[in-house]
Amino acid sequence: MPEFLDLLPPNIALDRFLERIQIQLKPEQIEVRSAQGRVAYEDIQAPHALPSFPRSTVDGYAVIAGDTHGASDSLPIYLNLIGEVRMGSSADFSLSPSQCGLIHTGGMLPQGADAVVMLENTQVAHPGEIEILRAVAVGENVIKVGEDVHEGEVVLPGGSLLRAPEIGGLLALGITHLQVTKQPKIAIISSGDEVIPPAADIEPGQVRDINSYTLSALVERVGAIPVSYGIIPDDEDSLREATSRALDECDMVVITAGSSASSRDLTAQVIDSLGEPGVISHGVNVRPGKPTILAACMTKGSMFAKPVIGLPGNPVSALVIAILFVEPVIDFLHGLRTPRIRSLIKAKTTINLASRAGREDWVPVKLIPEGDGYSADPIFGKSNLIFTLTRADGLLHIPPQVTGLNAGEMAEVMLLN
Amino acid sequence: MPEFLDLLPPNIALDRFLERIQIQLKPEQIEVRSAQGRVAYEDIQAPHALPSFPRSTVDGYAVIAGDTHGASDSLPIYLNLIGEVRMGSSADFSLSPSQCGLIHTGGMLPQGADAVVMLENTQVAHPGEIEILRAVAVGENVIKVGEDVHEGEVVLPGGSLLRAPEIGGLLALGITHLQVTKQPKIAIISSGDEVIPPAADIEPGQVRDINSYTLSALVERVGAIPVSYGIIPDDEDSLREATSRALDECDMVVITAGSSASSRDLTAQVIDSLGEPGVISHGVNVRPGKPTILAACMTKGSMFAKPVIGLPGNPVSALVIAILFVEPVIDFLHGLRTPRIRSLIKAKTTINLASRAGREDWVPVKLIPEGDGYSADPIFGKSNLIFTLTRADGLLHIPPQVTGLNAGEMAEVMLLN
Repeated sequence: MPEFLDLLPPNIALDRFLERIQIQLKPEQIEVRSAQGRVAYEDIQAPHALPSFPRSTVDGYAVIAGDTHGASDSLPIYLNLIGEVRMGSSADFSLSPSQCGLIHTGGMLPQGADAVVMLENTQVAHPGEIEILRAVAVGENVIKVGEDVHEGEVVLPGGSLLRAPEIGGLLALGITHLQVTKQPKIAIISSGDEVIPPAADIEPGQVRDINSYTLSALVERVGAIPVSYGIIPDDEDSLREATSRALDECDMVVITAGSSASSRDLTAQVIDSLGEPGVISHGVNVRPGKPTILAACMTKGSMFAKPVIGLPGNPVSALVIAILFVEPVIDFLHGLRTPRIRSLIKAKTTINLASRAGREDWVPVKLIPEGDGYSADPIFGKSNLIFTLTRADGLLHIPPQVTGLNAGEMAEVMLLN
Repeated sequence: MPEFLDLLPPNIALDRFLERIQIQLKPEQIEVRSAQGRVAYEDIQAPHALPSFPRSTVDGYAVIAGDTHGASDSLPIYLNLIGEVRMGSSADFSLSPSQCGLIHTGGMLPQGADAVVMLENTQVAHPGEIEILRAVAVGENVIKVGEDVHEGEVVLPGGSLLRAPEIGGLLALGITHLQVTKQPKIAIISSGDEVIPPAADIEPGQVRDINSYTLSALVERVGAIPVSYGIIPDDEDSLREATSRALDECDMVVITAGSSASSRDLTAQVIDSLGEPGVISHGVNVRPGKPTILAACMTKGSMFAKPVIGLPGNPVSALVIAILFVEPVIDFLHGLRTPRIRSLIKAKTTINLASRAGREDWVPVKLIPEGDGYSADPIFGKSNLIFTLTRADGLLHIPPQVTGLNAGEMAEVMLLN
């Protein structure tokens, strides 16, 4: 049995683990419109300024600001209306002093104009003559050329996650294709003599493989590709052969062990034999999920030590550890420049919760709307019970330095969806 | 110009809007393993208890609890070891008084056993004889049959979102297929005479269509299917024809108007002519996004009033309104029983922020790690500038009843990823 003395809390274990992993990102070209969830391979510069012409931010009259000096309700300034700027084209006129042009929100300023007076601050005096009731300064109600981005400006640094705003920004610049990093391929190996496929009839003593599938769902959630290697029996040769092949074919290997100590030990032993540096941490100071294995293996013919994670066999622990370790490692392999910000929402605990000093706890909770916020009601169950999680909205966080929470205290809850 | 008096705050406008929409959910059968992000069509019951046999939660010895009564380090109880339970099968022995069997975590209890003594609390006295150093109660270190779920129990109510835990739970029960609701099809229509496709060369006065694509990304993010109807010129007949066809073919129509008031007014007018009840709210008390149109239209031959949303033309407003209205309406059309919990994380504002009483504000912010949490640094820019959003991690919420936030005050930030 491994000793669990001096175990590291998850965040420190993760940092040390990431230090031992090497990656070489590979690019591929895709359409910007389908790039949600992908990561930019390189810096992208603006091919032209945005906006590329001065635009009005209001409906009103394009003017020369100096002409409006001193205008007020009691002392309007009169300007000659010489035309209207149609949406989607440049004006077919240019302004001289004492002239103005009708313009709509988003319309292009005519030549000569340097500001726009809002419609509300004007009045039609006679056909062709407009009363200006308020003065405007140069640039007022106008978006200048390049006010959003300048030509040549880096608009998307390499390593950025592509979300809806990035997709919009690139398309606004006419960039319809970009280089993104290839999606990491994540090998998933299930082991355990008691484990059978979900579609199989169950015999006494057997359990269905669920960790492969919950893990696949989490891998897909962060934009990587799960590759299943099936259920491998608990014998050293079979597990070594499968893991070694997975390590060659994928960017990371995740093994979900059987629930017995011998299955876990076998997993650690096989991983350690695959290449340097081997097992980095066996055990993490977290509940659930203590018997986690974090390793990196450089196989023959490979230039890099690829990450290998051994998940605990029980489904709740496996899911928590996949969120705490597998997903951040995928983001790293994907080339994400800064860690994803986790959705940790504040909620009030409904009961006292104990924890051991130094250990980080994640407690499945139901979130119950209360006033402006939520209260977090723990769902109890032995950590082997997958349905404690289906009843949970999130996992309540008890940090390592905290020895417990009192009922009514605020805590952070990581959402499960 | 529409009057924006007595506008409703977004949450109330949304509730009133949802009250006017009718839906009829349709089922389809899919594989559980690919069901992430889908919604259960009907209640699902457990076909058998889980676990289906009593399982050990530790490595140790299966015993008859009564046999261990009074056992201690100084006064051990001796039991005869009569076998080992192999993982994945039932024991080939059953316990009589004064007997025990070696068992692993997750192993099936042998006939006659009712508890397990942890390995740490035992010692091998002689081959075949085990010293028990601590007493156990009936059921100790054992998961009972049905402790996770009982046979016939509803394990997944209709209307539940399928996340990793639900996928795992169903597969644990051998349920490999399920009925989910069909994904809503969301029609996206772009209008505005100044709007051109992203791949087109830009002429003075023109802007590229980006709202269609940011909106598609958000639609996909919540598991629905975007259907693009292209860019429609600002004339009544074209817009009516396109919207009417979209309404027939899809479950919801979203129109992103041009930036001019006339384009917005035309959108409202066309929507209102398509069927009852027509426009429900024209304008919402939110910044950005005030000129939002919420409507429902029952077309000829249809049994239901389908939702139609007119988004403001400028890209930041369009994106905010899509998050506040389009996504929750999609969840409703998808059959989600309870609203999705938004990831609102707490952060400290870095500067004073003003807001008008009654108006809800969403301010793009960069989140900067600070101590245990984050500070939220507003990114200023006119709301027309898409790149203010690419620099933002989230949108800081100023609720309607708040007239401003002081630097250093805590606020909630909705993450953009």
